[in-house]
Formats: sequence, structure tokens, C-alpha cells
Amino acid sequence: MTADKNKTTAILLIHCPDKQGLLALVTEFINSNNGNILYLDQHVDREEKLFYMRIEWDLCHFSIPKEKIADYFSTLIAQKHQMTFQIHFAEEKPRMAIFVSKMSHCLFDLLARYTAGEWNVEIPLIISNHPDMADVARRFDIDYHLFPINKENKAEMEAREIALLEKYQIDFIVLARYMQIISDSFIAHYPHRIINIHHSFLPAFVGAKPYHAAYERGVKLIGATSHYVTTELDAGPIIKQEVTHVSHKDTVHDLIAKGRDLEKIVLSKAVNKHIERKILVYNNRTVVFS
Amino acid sequence: MTADKNKTTAILLIHCPDKQGLLALVTEFINSNNGNILYLDQHVDREEKLFYMRIEWDLCHFSIPKEKIADYFSTLIAQKHQMTFQIHFAEEKPRMAIFVSKMSHCLFDLLARYTAGEWNVEIPLIISNHPDMADVARRFDIDYHLFPINKENKAEMEAREIALLEKYQIDFIVLARYMQIISDSFIAHYPHRIINIHHSFLPAFVGAKPYHAAYERGVKLIGATSHYVTTELDAGPIIKQEVTHVSHKDTVHDLIAKGRDLEKIVLSKAVNKHIERKILVYNNRTVVFS
Amino acid sequence: MTADKNKTTAILLIHCPDKQGLLALVTEFINSNNGNILYLDQHVDREEKLFYMRIEWDLCHFSIPKEKIADYFSTLIAQKHQMTFQIHFAEEKPRMAIFVSKMSHCLFDLLARYTAGEWNVEIPLIISNHPDMADVARRFDIDYHLFPINKENKAEMEAREIALLEKYQIDFIVLARYMQIISDSFIAHYPHRIINIHHSFLPAFVGAKPYHAAYERGVKLIGATSHYVTTELDAGPIIKQEVTHVSHKDTVHDLIAKGRDLEKIVLSKAVNKHIERKILVYNNRTVVFS
Amino acid sequence: MTADKNKTTAILLIHCPDKQGLLALVTEFINSNNGNILYLDQHVDREEKLFYMRIEWDLCHFSIPKEKIADYFSTLIAQKHQMTFQIHFAEEKPRMAIFVSKMSHCLFDLLARYTAGEWNVEIPLIISNHPDMADVARRFDIDYHLFPINKENKAEMEAREIALLEKYQIDFIVLARYMQIISDSFIAHYPHRIINIHHSFLPAFVGAKPYHAAYERGVKLIGATSHYVTTELDAGPIIKQEVTHVSHKDTVHDLIAKGRDLEKIVLSKAVNKHIERKILVYNNRTVVFS
Repeated sequence: MTADKNKTTAILLIHCPDKQGLLALVTEFINSNNGNILYLDQHVDREEKLFYMRIEWDLCHFSIPKEKIADYFSTLIAQKHQMTFQIHFAEEKPRMAIFVSKMSHCLFDLLARYTAGEWNVEIPLIISNHPDMADVARRFDIDYHLFPINKENKAEMEAREIALLEKYQIDFIVLARYMQIISDSFIAHYPHRIINIHHSFLPAFVGAKPYHAAYERGVKLIGATSHYVTTELDAGPIIKQEVTHVSHKDTVHDLIAKGRDLEKIVLSKAVNKHIERKILVYNNRTVVFS
Repeated sequence: MTADKNKTTAILLIHCPDKQGLLALVTEFINSNNGNILYLDQHVDREEKLFYMRIEWDLCHFSIPKEKIADYFSTLIAQKHQMTFQIHFAEEKPRMAIFVSKMSHCLFDLLARYTAGEWNVEIPLIISNHPDMADVARRFDIDYHLFPINKENKAEMEAREIALLEKYQIDFIVLARYMQIISDSFIAHYPHRIINIHHSFLPAFVGAKPYHAAYERGVKLIGATSHYVTTELDAGPIIKQEVTHVSHKDTVHDLIAKGRDLEKIVLSKAVNKHIERKILVYNNRTVVFS
Repeated sequence: MTADKNKTTAILLIHCPDKQGLLALVTEFINSNNGNILYLDQHVDREEKLFYMRIEWDLCHFSIPKEKIADYFSTLIAQKHQMTFQIHFAEEKPRMAIFVSKMSHCLFDLLARYTAGEWNVEIPLIISNHPDMADVARRFDIDYHLFPINKENKAEMEAREIALLEKYQIDFIVLARYMQIISDSFIAHYPHRIINIHHSFLPAFVGAKPYHAAYERGVKLIGATSHYVTTELDAGPIIKQEVTHVSHKDTVHDLIAKGRDLEKIVLSKAVNKHIERKILVYNNRTVVFS
Repeated sequence: MTADKNKTTAILLIHCPDKQGLLALVTEFINSNNGNILYLDQHVDREEKLFYMRIEWDLCHFSIPKEKIADYFSTLIAQKHQMTFQIHFAEEKPRMAIFVSKMSHCLFDLLARYTAGEWNVEIPLIISNHPDMADVARRFDIDYHLFPINKENKAEMEAREIALLEKYQIDFIVLARYMQIISDSFIAHYPHRIINIHHSFLPAFVGAKPYHAAYERGVKLIGATSHYVTTELDAGPIIKQEVTHVSHKDTVHDLIAKGRDLEKIVLSKAVNKHIERKILVYNNRTVVFS
């Protein structure tokens, strides 16, 4: 091992049954091997008696070679304490695909951040069930593939999508107002790796046309919710939610316009947390580290 | 009529089918009779083709005697244009009863504002199904009546409550975390005159224990909703809603504590609007004038 | 005059000393000439005794020809009541120029909305003091002109900018994080027609590096403010402000990142209100109609 | 030592120069002595290279007697690492005095929470420079002492106030809209133990009449700021800030009314954090643990 090989930081995400001393154990593992801790956040769910942790450290002088950290940590600590863990390295850029239908606001927001270098991510692929956004993809020089899905061809189309996603080595998928329900078998390929934006404050107004439903109900706030997609519609683990005030003066059209600003910001915040490996999912809820 | 008798302001609330010229008609009625307009807000629901208006004017030099305004307005304008209207005078203090169970936070907030003179209201009566808040009522010198309602005695108890409300000449009722469902026949006595605070962002988490349900669902915002009580549980016209951020760190107990601050502010804002005659209800929604 | 010529809506913005009957006068002018009022909002500043109004009506059957409305309104009403007024027609698209330096987030947000057709505006021109954003302009097919302004060449450069703005028939200018102070003489060409985004909650943290100042002060909220540019730095009439929570965990870098999301939304909301002719400026404050 | 003597939790607040291993050291100190950690939050200021920590643990089986923990921790850990620390025990109720002038909204909010048992605190004393709030104190059975301070008698009055605060064994003071500047020598008796509520979003609108100043400036948000009092007016470490939207329709009177709701909530949130020993002050900023 040379210093060069380790010139990065490691991110460790852990969850396990809670017990005394877990925090000391993990920090001691890093300290005693000469890792400099840069970030630590932990959470104990006292009701479920579960321990969650995210820790990041500088590998510069770390005495365990990068490629062996997972193995050492598993043997020395994780197995003894029923820990589930993931290890990531800061220089690895996750690869993200965007699914889109006809609306551009979320897509533009994602691509603007990508182009500006705000995020440590690669976006090589946009998939759509409509041709409308091809022009936006072209402006940003990103491959755009059209899959005109319908009830009849769904299974076949999704199979081809998955093949394409694999070819592009996609790590996670962002549904940027993709107006098409994804099948359970597709979701099974990307567990907690598909992020959706729903245009309501979930669990209010599940399903289609939430702004119309919100208008009918006469609510005084509208919201947007980003969540991981699970097989139950609009019921996956929530990552981020925001709302904005509306009044009797707002038509359905106004709600839709106000909602667009919420949707794009809430989706981008969720994507950012996912890219930074700051989300742990457990029991259909999320721990989102700060 | 002497100037003295008219030394006040009049508030007119109108709704009717929309058509051209309504605004000019009403303002002309006031101007031509020498009323000085102090406030005007109006709203047109273009989808339902409905016109809503709130107008307030100084009666000091108004040429129509106060007690005849309703009659004149009805004959000269309202009947010709299918207007539904209410007229109020600023010096009339509405009389409000508070219904409470065991929690004090909303009750204290209402009484603190009342005591400080923030509102143009009289609060002569507190009704409860528990004895717990009697001490708070005593501190503020307000009559406290206990009705230990249960399934068996409900009809009789409610009848006695209504008799008491009538004796106290109560105009409207505020349910300050009153944990008891009110019967349809009781509600019929106070249509759009019972204000409730529900401890969630409706229509999410209708019913009992909304904070527990919010915790289970893993939401990232909790809310409170003030609304008029109708016979369908938690489905009446919404007056005001607010939310606050929560995270995985918040236990159910934390949600309840954070929620208390929302509930009392949201309830008091709704009560304030009601007292100021700034709410019109139509089609189970509210127009809340600014 | 044919019906075709008038197939649009007119927007009238008025301010004048308040007195009785103004609202009736203006609505009567429109009604009696067979205009159908689509929007009306008004405000009376009781302290300064000023009346502000925005009214919009359908010209379809309006009996005064479009090109004579200003003349008629001036003669029949405005002059008699010391009214200052503007008249606009919905089909006229204002022409907007964007000034930008090196940051892309506001620029992308403006251009994404423009491309999506959210706004009734033309954006034919981007001006910058740096070459960095030329590539973004190219992606959206908008002319990009570079003026590398410095202290020595400022007067000359600004003169050339004004010539270019006139050539492009620009109506108003949006400073999308343009990091260059504009001279008084330049501002005089576009009174209340230059919109800036300042990256703080004004009047806190006027001037350069507001996020660094906010960090030093240890504030728990950061903000963004859109305002019209006047000759006093960061002191022009405020159009829109928003804030977001920050904590001790946020570094200056985090504040800057969180601020970007505020800036772009707050700037775009101000631009939207300006395009919709919903802003009146008086006494260095704004009336922003709903 | 018996189990009874230790039947409580300990809270340790630490700050010191950052270095590797601090977290492991402190958690190890607690774990190895059989303390069960109930809460841990820490923060590293990477710019200033400072480490902040709050840790709470169950003393039930802790092997070090309660009264010796400070001594042991100091000798074994704190001195070696230049730590500044405080230790508190959950059963110790801090004693709080409220200073008030003529306005009741913050006072009522504090006393309502106290009466409802929301907080682990004793409030035995209210001090005022006016008689107006004596009646509120009486309703809540709390001693009320009047000190009609003016320029001439200030030094003497403050000396008598301090004597009274000492007699009542007051730990910290809450200025609940106390409209009187406190002298530097008084502040020196309660460093970072006087909490004020300022009725603006500091640092905007320092000093008197901030709502009037906000109105003049035409801001679109107003705020409230709770902070520790230091000798520089309105410039002490900020604990909590909130804002609410306002518009051109709001008069100064409206801003004051809207502000009251902000002030009381923001002040109470700060008091709550102080009571829970969740605030560390350093370099005129606060670390507020979650």
C-alpha cells in the first residue's frame, strides 16, 4: 500500500441492534489504525432499539489498505455485533439515470446542478416514455433513449430499459416527474435506489392529480415529497418534504405553478443526500444524516 | 338617527353568482350614501363563477340608519343579484365558548390573547368533559362547566350543553383540543360556527393519534389544521394550516411537543379571522380575506 | 375597430392620492364601456393616504379602441384625480436582458423557465463581464456579449452596453448574480427596471460576502432578497424575500450552497411578478399584487 | 454509593481544541464505568479546530459516585486535553427569573408552559420596571417585584435586583420583552445566562422600534431573534430565529401583531434549549444541540 492509493476518504454506514459501546468500538477501530475522523453522525432509535451511524475519515495515513477495509471491519466488528454496513469511497462517482416524461422543470434543475459541478455524480443517461425532452438532453449532451411504454409492451420495454441501465452501469435512478408506474420486478432491481418526486405532501393526495385533489379539498398549503420507490404506490420511505402557502385566490393552474418550484428543490435535495451517502433506510423510514 | 348612533363601522360579507358590475354596484351603494370605505377585498372563483366580497366602511356620515342598512341593501341590491349577505357592526363583540378536555396549551393561548385585549370578543364560558382545566378557568375568572360525556349520556349531555350555550348567548364555539366527537344534531345548531384544531396536516392523518401515524409513516414535516366542524369527521372547510420540520431524531413525544406550538398558533389565527368576520364558507372551502 | 383588433386583455396600474369613490370610478369606466373585469386588486396606504390599483379586463367587446384607451382614461379620469398610471396589453411580450458573471444557478433557472414557456417574455440577450457563461447561453441559443468591465473602462463599456440594450429593444434587466456595481447613470436609463438578487436577508449583510458575514454573526437563518436597483447599494425597493434554516453545523461553504436554492427561486419569483405587471413602486417600497 | 443516590442521568457539555480520538475517549470513560449512553451529539468546527460535545447517560449502574464524577473526569480526561466542561444532573431543576415590562404575550407563553409542566424548571420570581404585569403574576402565584428603574437610580436598583436574584437562588434570567437596557456590570453577574428576545431578524434592525424600521424599509419578511445578552446591544450569541411573511397590506400595527406570535415561540424555544443544557457558547456564536 502506498500513500497514493489511499488518498481519499472512506464513508461507513452502519445499522444494527443497539447496545452499549458501539460508538466507542467504531471510532476506536478508525483511530487505532490512524484514520482521521472528518464526520460522525449517529442515531439511536430507542423504541426499536436500533443504532444507525455514518462516519467518514481521511485514509491518508490509515494503516489498512483501502480494498481490505470492508473485510477487516466485517471480521473484527460487524459480524460480532450483527451490523449491516456499506462502505464507500469519496472518489467513486455514483452513476445516475434520469427518467422523465413531458415536464422539464425537475430535469433542468438536475442538469443545471450537474453542469455546474455541484454534485459528485455522473449522469450519462436519460430515459423517457415521450420524445418531448430529447431537445433538453441534447443541449446538455446526454444520451436520450425513448421507450414508448404502454400496457401491452410494458414487460418487454422494462426488460430493455434494465439492459440499457446495466450497459450504462447505472447505480441509481431519479424519476423527474416520470408519469408512468414502474413494475414490481423493475423496482426489485433497484431497491432503495429509485428516487421519486410526488407532487403532494404525502400521505395526503396519493395517486394521480394531487393538485386537483388539493384544490377540491381547499387546503391552505401544498407540498412535495421525495421518496424511494417501493412496490406500494407513493408509500416508500420519505426523504424530504416541503410545503408552500396557497389561498382561495389560487386556481389549480396556480397550484401547479407553485408546486413546480417545490418539486424541483425537494427532488434535488433528496438526490444530493443520496449522492453524499447520507441516507439509511429501515422499516420503511429514512435516517437522513445532516 | 343621530351621528352618535352611527359611530361605528359596518362590515358586509357577500357571495353570489358572478357577473359584470357587482363591485361597482356595491361600492356605489356605499359612496353615494356617504360611507367612507375602509377595507375592500373581493374574490372571483372563475371556475364556479362565484363572486365573494368583504367591505367595511365608516358609518359616521352614512345616510342610511344603521338598523336599516340590511333592509335597504337587501331590497336595492341583494335580491336583484341573488346575493347572500351578512352585515356586522364593529362594536358588536361576538361571544365565544371554549370546549376543552385535558390539555392546556391551546386554552392558555386563547385566554392570554383575550386577557391582553388582542381580540374583539367576549369569552364567558368554558365547557369540558374533564375537570382538569377548571383551575385554568379560575385563574382567568371564566365560568367552567363540566359535562362528563359518555356514550350512554351523550344526547342528554349535549342537550344541556346547548341550553347552557343559549343561556350564555354564545355565537361560536372553539374546540381547543376537545377530545370528544360532537353529534350531528349539535353541529346543526352552530353551522360553520364551531372551529376545531386538528393535530395534523389534513387530509393526512384523519382521526385519532395523528402524531403516532405521522411517526409511523416517517414524514419529514408535521402540521396542524384549523377548520370548521361539519358532520364528516375532520373534513370541514379548512381555515388555516401550518407545518414544521421534523427528522428521524424526533420521537412521538417530540412530535407531540413540536405540534403543540403549531396547534395553538394555527387555532388562534383561525379564531382571529372568525372574530374579524373575514371568512366566507362555500362548497366546503373557505375564502379567508386578508 | 374590429373585434379582432381588441382580442386581448388590458392591464391598468394606478396610484394616486386616496379619496372616496376611486374604485367605483375605475370599475365604472370599464363596465360602462363593456369591458369584462378579469382581475382586480387594490390597496390603500392609510398612513400615506395613497391608493394603488391593478385591474385587468377583456377587450373583446370593449367599446374604446385599444390604442385610444390611454388617452380616454387620462382625459376622463386620471387627470381629474392626480392619477399616475400605466397601461399594458397581455399580448405584448416584454423583452428582458440577463446580466451574469461566473455563477450559473440563477441563469439556468431563468432560462429553464423561459424555455418551458412559463413566462410571457422574450430573452434575446445575455451580457457578462466574464466569458464563463457563454457556453450556457449557447445551449439555449441566446446571444452572449462580453464586456470585460474594469475601473478604467467602466464609462465606455456601460455606454456600449446601453447601445446594445437599445438595439435589442430591452425593456428590463435581470442581474442574475452579476458581481459588478452598476453606475448611477446606467441605472437612470432603467428606473425600477433592473432587478437584482442579493444573497442575504436585506437589510442585514449589505455589500459583498454576505454569507461570510452571516457565518461570523452566527445567524440561524440565511436569506435572499430580490429588489429593484437604485443608486444606493442594496437599498432599492424589495420585491421578494425568503429564508432557510441553518445551524452551527453549516460551514460558509454550506451557507453558499443552501443560499443558491433561495437565490434562484426568489429572483425568479420577482421576475415573474415584474413580467405580469404586478409591481408598483412608491416611496422606495413595493406593492406586489397577488 | 447506593443505586438510589445515582438514580438519575448526567449531562456532560464539553468544548476543547479538536484532535483525534476525543469522542472515543469520552464514550470509553462512560462505557468502562458502566454508564448507559442515552444521548450523544458532537460538532467539530473545522475552521477553528474546536470540538464540542454533549453526552447524557444513565447513572443507575455507573460505578463513579455522582458527586465525584466532575473530579474524576477532570483529572482523568479534561485536564489532559484542555477541555472546558460542565456537568449537570437531570433531577436538578434550574431556577429562572423573568423580567418583563408592559407586554404580556411572552410572559403568558412562558408561564403556560411552566404550569403545564412542559419544562424542568422552577420560576419563583418575576421582576418588572412597571406594575402592569403584577396581575398576571398573581394569577400564576409567582412573586412579583417592582423596580421602577430610571437613569438616576439604575445602579442602586440593579444592585437590589441582584440581591433579590441571589436570595431566590436564580440560575438564569429571561427578558420577556423587558424594555430596559441592562448595565454591563449586571450582565457580568450572569454571563450567557440572560436570554433576550429581540423583535427583528438580527442583525437587521438593531435597537428600538424594529417593526417601524422594517415597515419603512418595506421588507417582505419580519423576524424575531432570541440571544444571550452581552454588553454590546443586540449583538450577543444567537440561539434561535424565525420569520414570517408580510406584505404591503400590513401596517406597522399588523407587523407588531404578527411579530408577537414569532416572539413568544422563538423565546420559548430558546428557553427550552437552555433548560435542557443543549447550548454551548463560543466566539459569540452558539452550538445548539438537537
